[in-house]
Amino acid sequence: MKQSAHRFDISTRGQGLYQCTATIEEWVRRQTLQVGLLTVFCRHTSASLLIQENADPTVRLDLQTYFDRIAPQNGSYIHDSEGPDDMPAHLKTALTQVQLTIPMMNGGLVLGTWQGIYLFEHRTRPHRREIVLHLIGE
Amino acid sequence: MKQSAHRFDISTRGQGLYQCTATIEEWVRRQTLQVGLLTVFCRHTSASLLIQENADPTVRLDLQTYFDRIAPQNGSYIHDSEGPDDMPAHLKTALTQVQLTIPMMNGGLVLGTWQGIYLFEHRTRPHRREIVLHLIGE
Amino acid sequence: MKQSAHRFDISTRGQGLYQCTATIEEWVRRQTLQVGLLTVFCRHTSASLLIQENADPTVRLDLQTYFDRIAPQNGSYIHDSEGPDDMPAHLKTALTQVQLTIPMMNGGLVLGTWQGIYLFEHRTRPHRREIVLHLIGE
Repeated sequence: MKQSAHRFDISTRGQGLYQCTATIEEWVRRQTLQVGLLTVFCRHTSASLLIQENADPTVRLDLQTYFDRIAPQNGSYIHDSEGPDDMPAHLKTALTQVQLTIPMMNGGLVLGTWQGIYLFEHRTRPHRREIVLHLIGE
Repeated sequence: MKQSAHRFDISTRGQGLYQCTATIEEWVRRQTLQVGLLTVFCRHTSASLLIQENADPTVRLDLQTYFDRIAPQNGSYIHDSEGPDDMPAHLKTALTQVQLTIPMMNGGLVLGTWQGIYLFEHRTRPHRREIVLHLIGE
Repeated sequence: MKQSAHRFDISTRGQGLYQCTATIEEWVRRQTLQVGLLTVFCRHTSASLLIQENADPTVRLDLQTYFDRIAPQNGSYIHDSEGPDDMPAHLKTALTQVQLTIPMMNGGLVLGTWQGIYLFEHRTRPHRREIVLHLIGE
């Protein structure tokens, strides 16, 4: 049994879903395990992780519109020190998650055909987001 | 330390919560570990996983009604290629999750007395959903 | 490779976010691993876990107000056997999660600077909540 850990950054340019499946799968492949468990962790409270449809881009558009609607900028929040997108970003992060675990079988992640791994950026300004990967298996 | 992985299907007949605790616990028992970590992974973007109350079935009814209300079919979505339940299914999946991790102690999962593991089907038509289990421990 | 598991209680006095980062980090430190994977599991269906901002307490206030608004007590639920805060507690748990996985690197959890681990209590009466920790690594 062995394990590896790795940290990398994703540069974001405003709200939206940033696909990072290829980056993650490439690192996983380099660890040359057959069976194992991958954890993806986002070190922030205003950006999150989502496994969602990787085919039709309108799904991502609708997802973004939806989360803007249920966690709106004009929500009469107490916390607004970093602007009107500050508290909605925390709420969207709470409604999704900052950590994913994905099993490996037969040398690859068991993601379904239509599943992609996305960083969900909730802030409007550009950010550099830190992601940690951890893999254990053999 | 050892690990095992396993894939199985759940046939769904429309929206709702499908209990799969017994199936999962039976497989876990067969691996004969004392302490470990189980991961349950759903390979889809329109069905998800939920740990929820296993006693009173009205909790599941209310959960379903609630998610129908906050992710309604008449939501003016751009993406509707597979019908009015298509985009709400993606939203409900995003609001819940497709992966769960549950520790094992004393030879069993540490689920609480009232906790059951459910596949949350969000599509109206019957589907065959693929679930992957991964267990590591000793 | 080694693993440890541990169970502890958190006493809650009504709805709100109860920080438990220090308790968890102290236990993790005592296991003296360099690299690994921590899982935090909450054995309940009316309280959940959240990684959120640990600096400005108004974020927690806004989070609580927000979840009260999207899962209100007057929601015409079928299930109300334990009072008006019963079903909203299940909904808030479903919208967040009962399990977190956090990698370890360089002898510590990879939590970001502003990330704290919280038990999110959704019931109004005092409760004793059981949390299980599982750590694997070396």
